Amino acid sequence: MPESPLRVAMIGNGFMGAAHSQGWRVAPRFYDLPATPEMALLVGRNPSTVGPAARKWGWAETSLDWREAIARDDIDVIDIVTPGDSHAEIAIAALAAGKHVLCEKPLANTSAEAQEMADAAAAAFERGVFAMVGFTFRRLPATVYARDLVASGAIGELRQVRAAYLQDWLVDENAPMVWRLDKSLAGSGALGDIGAHAIDLAQFITGQRLQSVSGILQTLVNDRPIAGSSERGRVTVDDVALFQGRFDSGMLGTFEASRMATGRRNSLRVEVSGSTGAISFDMEDQNFLEFYDGSAEAGTRGFTRISVTQPEHPYVAAWWPPGHILGYEHGFSHQVRDFVEAIVAHEQPTPSFADGLQVQRVLDAVEASSADGSAWIATN
Amino acid sequence: MPESPLRVAMIGNGFMGAAHSQGWRVAPRFYDLPATPEMALLVGRNPSTVGPAARKWGWAETSLDWREAIARDDIDVIDIVTPGDSHAEIAIAALAAGKHVLCEKPLANTSAEAQEMADAAAAAFERGVFAMVGFTFRRLPATVYARDLVASGAIGELRQVRAAYLQDWLVDENAPMVWRLDKSLAGSGALGDIGAHAIDLAQFITGQRLQSVSGILQTLVNDRPIAGSSERGRVTVDDVALFQGRFDSGMLGTFEASRMATGRRNSLRVEVSGSTGAISFDMEDQNFLEFYDGSAEAGTRGFTRISVTQPEHPYVAAWWPPGHILGYEHGFSHQVRDFVEAIVAHEQPTPSFADGLQVQRVLDAVEASSADGSAWIATN
Amino acid sequence: MPESPLRVAMIGNGFMGAAHSQGWRVAPRFYDLPATPEMALLVGRNPSTVGPAARKWGWAETSLDWREAIARDDIDVIDIVTPGDSHAEIAIAALAAGKHVLCEKPLANTSAEAQEMADAAAAAFERGVFAMVGFTFRRLPATVYARDLVASGAIGELRQVRAAYLQDWLVDENAPMVWRLDKSLAGSGALGDIGAHAIDLAQFITGQRLQSVSGILQTLVNDRPIAGSSERGRVTVDDVALFQGRFDSGMLGTFEASRMATGRRNSLRVEVSGSTGAISFDMEDQNFLEFYDGSAEAGTRGFTRISVTQPEHPYVAAWWPPGHILGYEHGFSHQVRDFVEAIVAHEQPTPSFADGLQVQRVLDAVEASSADGSAWIATN
Amino acid sequence: MPESPLRVAMIGNGFMGAAHSQGWRVAPRFYDLPATPEMALLVGRNPSTVGPAARKWGWAETSLDWREAIARDDIDVIDIVTPGDSHAEIAIAALAAGKHVLCEKPLANTSAEAQEMADAAAAAFERGVFAMVGFTFRRLPATVYARDLVASGAIGELRQVRAAYLQDWLVDENAPMVWRLDKSLAGSGALGDIGAHAIDLAQFITGQRLQSVSGILQTLVNDRPIAGSSERGRVTVDDVALFQGRFDSGMLGTFEASRMATGRRNSLRVEVSGSTGAISFDMEDQNFLEFYDGSAEAGTRGFTRISVTQPEHPYVAAWWPPGHILGYEHGFSHQVRDFVEAIVAHEQPTPSFADGLQVQRVLDAVEASSADGSAWIATN
Repeated sequence: MPESPLRVAMIGNGFMGAAHSQGWRVAPRFYDLPATPEMALLVGRNPSTVGPAARKWGWAETSLDWREAIARDDIDVIDIVTPGDSHAEIAIAALAAGKHVLCEKPLANTSAEAQEMADAAAAAFERGVFAMVGFTFRRLPATVYARDLVASGAIGELRQVRAAYLQDWLVDENAPMVWRLDKSLAGSGALGDIGAHAIDLAQFITGQRLQSVSGILQTLVNDRPIAGSSERGRVTVDDVALFQGRFDSGMLGTFEASRMATGRRNSLRVEVSGSTGAISFDMEDQNFLEFYDGSAEAGTRGFTRISVTQPEHPYVAAWWPPGHILGYEHGFSHQVRDFVEAIVAHEQPTPSFADGLQVQRVLDAVEASSADGSAWIATN
Repeated sequence: MPESPLRVAMIGNGFMGAAHSQGWRVAPRFYDLPATPEMALLVGRNPSTVGPAARKWGWAETSLDWREAIARDDIDVIDIVTPGDSHAEIAIAALAAGKHVLCEKPLANTSAEAQEMADAAAAAFERGVFAMVGFTFRRLPATVYARDLVASGAIGELRQVRAAYLQDWLVDENAPMVWRLDKSLAGSGALGDIGAHAIDLAQFITGQRLQSVSGILQTLVNDRPIAGSSERGRVTVDDVALFQGRFDSGMLGTFEASRMATGRRNSLRVEVSGSTGAISFDMEDQNFLEFYDGSAEAGTRGFTRISVTQPEHPYVAAWWPPGHILGYEHGFSHQVRDFVEAIVAHEQPTPSFADGLQVQRVLDAVEASSADGSAWIATN
Repeated sequence: MPESPLRVAMIGNGFMGAAHSQGWRVAPRFYDLPATPEMALLVGRNPSTVGPAARKWGWAETSLDWREAIARDDIDVIDIVTPGDSHAEIAIAALAAGKHVLCEKPLANTSAEAQEMADAAAAAFERGVFAMVGFTFRRLPATVYARDLVASGAIGELRQVRAAYLQDWLVDENAPMVWRLDKSLAGSGALGDIGAHAIDLAQFITGQRLQSVSGILQTLVNDRPIAGSSERGRVTVDDVALFQGRFDSGMLGTFEASRMATGRRNSLRVEVSGSTGAISFDMEDQNFLEFYDGSAEAGTRGFTRISVTQPEHPYVAAWWPPGHILGYEHGFSHQVRDFVEAIVAHEQPTPSFADGLQVQRVLDAVEASSADGSAWIATN
Repeated sequence: MPESPLRVAMIGNGFMGAAHSQGWRVAPRFYDLPATPEMALLVGRNPSTVGPAARKWGWAETSLDWREAIARDDIDVIDIVTPGDSHAEIAIAALAAGKHVLCEKPLANTSAEAQEMADAAAAAFERGVFAMVGFTFRRLPATVYARDLVASGAIGELRQVRAAYLQDWLVDENAPMVWRLDKSLAGSGALGDIGAHAIDLAQFITGQRLQSVSGILQTLVNDRPIAGSSERGRVTVDDVALFQGRFDSGMLGTFEASRMATGRRNSLRVEVSGSTGAISFDMEDQNFLEFYDGSAEAGTRGFTRISVTQPEHPYVAAWWPPGHILGYEHGFSHQVRDFVEAIVAHEQPTPSFADGLQVQRVLDAVEASSADGSAWIATN
């Protein structure tokens, strides 16, 4: 059976656009996909950048208007990599037009928008049109293997979670203003940008959801230089988010998201302690998973540093021999594989927009808790 | 000038007694102390254990009543290593009798008791009698060096703290009842036993104090077998304590104390992020300190793993050549050195009972916050 | 100036073919190359595999005969990824036909062949035709940065080298026979396959060459099952190669190549000790470089773990933000960039065939030394 | 039964004297020994240092002549911590006088001397007088546990050894002359001082002995300043020793001893690869052992970092709770325990002088190999 093509239009051409492009380009070279993605159309608002971006990344055509992409009959998939404030409008229109949608995280800047998106996705699902939100750190061999170990009972009854996403790109108080520091565009700061990943990953690995949270946000540097100007712009989002959360089972977790964690470039960490074992992951070491097996002979217990690069491990067999590591961008190829397979199989791809909405509600609850003296706030 | 002797009586003969004995025994063999400690008297309540303990550890005499030790004229120092519920009575009596007092942490089981002890110590100080509380993790080369680096400005303005003390000796739900799980004896659980260390160490390294906290306590296993009985006893203390704290400068810190952190045997971690650097410590690796120097040439920045075993490092010159590591017990020798030197110099040894009271108030505030839905509670 | 195309034919479609294909495909998407590679022709001997491989990897056409590729006028570059016994014939013919040649390492199975290839490359160079050998581990940000630090004098006068390439894919004595275990096809075993990388990388980082060596080879498992047969085939190459080498300056280095290093999946390690510092690299951790700066303040000295993922680091700016790691295959994109840039600039790309010949001579000298009781053998 | 005393005289009061003193002092405080060591007599040649050393370390009396110690009836044990050139004379005389002897490693500066010592020990053994050589790194929980794992078959058939002892105290070319750099006193340099440890430990863990070796020695800095003089003294020993060795089974090992390994303070490393597992040890991390268990489920295999601080582990139960680490000096307490227990049990303590002689022969063979162009030299 010949593979049918799946024509993709990507909306947005920033940093995430490069990563998604690499996913669309590379996935079919390593995986046998049931449909072949075609990089048909790149949409950007800036005519001086969208053309060069399309040429560089290999998109066949360009447009300055996302509505055009949605209006075209020869586009099957809309991939949204714009800032969060435009996600809802684009995604809802795309789904209404019968396009499958892959939307970068966070799903939206507010739960209200995210709710509309989830509703639209639910309606589209009935029509065989699928939507997925892009939490790519669920697509790493180590994190999927961690989830599998937990689900298999390898660490017993879950007891505690510690999750953090630590970056340091804002440590310098003269690092310039960018859209990610403007609440009207970004929704929130460290919380929504990277805390969302910590939340999603902790929930993904444990198979449990946060039911309530208590936390606090802080902005450490309140204004920053505006590039090409002598003025300083106001930072309207958090630099640091700290919270505790209670999962379905009553289990507590501690969470931190910081862009001020000096020396930590990109350290997304999740550790889950169970009654008979533990798993520990750090994205700075993303090709390894630490696993403590409490069933090993007493004297030999300890954290085992597993090189998650073997054929036994999720996603790996398509790539290289053991010990030949994967990089940041491989998650995007894995995401394309999973998304395409779900579409062709007419199954809901995960994480769904409903999953994205749930993360958004956790983010909202953390903000509400921070505004209310760290009172515990339910996430639904 | 010949060294004068300093005759010591130690009250208590459990695990901490072995550690303190090693400190008294070994310190004068490596440091030139201005007074020579004599291990004069060991006091224990159990006649069948105190004699063998004294012989094994090298105490000259034994007693079954701490009041006897305090009544003797030939005792200069009372070293208290009993459970926390008896600290106040013994220490206050000892100070009143003109004995210098070294008291294990936590200072007391309640702030009320700790306040009385601090008052007694303040009064004794006026009479040239000194009291110190035993936070020995302040006495490690790595932690003192971390404090020194921070104080020197090597990491710039302090921005964030993450502190945790993770152990796993209660993971097995059939680990037996011990006095540390009984609130009436131990005061609190993970919070007071190991969280107190995380608090003290974070405050020591940053030179700042926690002004308010928001947190939650949890007991994961509520009853445990009683040794020699078919019944199970009730666990009345926390297994896990999670909280955030606000320091003097407004800086936030995240804290965790857990005896359920599967695979983490004894991991006391403190990381401090500053505007131009960071330090990171883990007691499972206690001979190393991680230091991020933001002033290094851009391409070469990263955490430097310093083997804190060189003559430049605190306490080290008296011991071994570089790379020959120290162990857990060396903190007790360092504590003896510092305590003896302060006594002879007629200076207040640190941490004082007032410092111990302050930690106790933080512990109380965490308990109060937990009881009040994680509301922020001032520590004084 | 529009970029001119550079039409590539790749000879060989095994594991290395996938890696090279990824390099040709991806490099122009991240780097602004002065000529655009076109994946024109894939050559393989097996008609049942070459077609699917070409479709999967994105080569426009296929052929069963490498001579056809060389005969075509519309091919500019021949990329050789066959086993070592065919390198010489193909490369020499390609160069004679005016094709630029990229040849996988080791350059050849014998120095005699490698000499002919180097001669052919030297002659081609005079005609503006370029040849390069594919030691891709020279193309990692960490290894180039290590070379740069050494060259800048950051570790002072070089004193010692320790290099090893440890793998474990042959630990199981029932792992099946493959061509890499047959001396007639592979030339040598661990020595030539992975020891060659250790030699090249040590020479690259130090900027010095091995002048003589003393070593020993060993085969630990002498026969292995033949897939689809009940017989066992004879292993005619080494499993383990151990040797010492003397560099230009008289400096000694210790080398190990093993496919029997249980638990070490793909650990290529090079450490260079200098009079004022050191660098240490391990490919299992390839996004980090350890750097010991002896000029740092005494108390703060130690190995700094540099995340070599910042814009300051070689090759990195084209990829992702700091802390977003690169994988095994990125070396192949870097190789394409360097090769294309050299061709367009009419400069000799490195490592040249002469460089590859020199590595081959070191390999030969190790074999000769092993055969002669570990006597020191000059490499030229 | 009351414990009988064991009166000890220690000959030598340098750095190793402090370590041995700590062993004699502390061992009986943690272990229930069948005889109680008494620190009776310290012998040193320098009247200005021996008295203060005795007072500091707690020896009851002092002497300037080791012969006096041997002549005394009330001395049971002679502990020799002098430089290697005096070991033979003292040990042989002590054994002749019926004293048990503990002699620091290396046993002697030459095999001839070591042979005489081993002969004397064998003769003494017949008279119930025991001799042991002090390779204390055999006395660490991690190394004994490694030996036990290997002996139990946990890593299968042994395949390869990599051992190194890396220090950096001579990196600075102006580090001053000391006796360890003078061949007439020290016998050899890095080879005998630290290479001897690597040899002993590799043999201890594998249970095999080196039958032949091929190696090379190098002196990188040939003269060094003499303290208190404007002249430089000649370094007559090696700074670096590199060799391969063949064990009983035919297994090869690679060895390095260096005092020029910049940044490596005290890194004694031994890794043993077996057919079903591996163990890896590094003394800079001496409370941990890395164990690769090839029998674990495929996806979970990796090196497990075992905190060798649990009651299951050798020597540990007498000390602290899990995760409370031991230091350098604990090996000396363990040595005292093992030596005293063997004496009282009338069993040969290990390593015997014959074992020390065997190590000496390996050292001699390495020197001979280095002098003979790295030819393979048998060790007996």
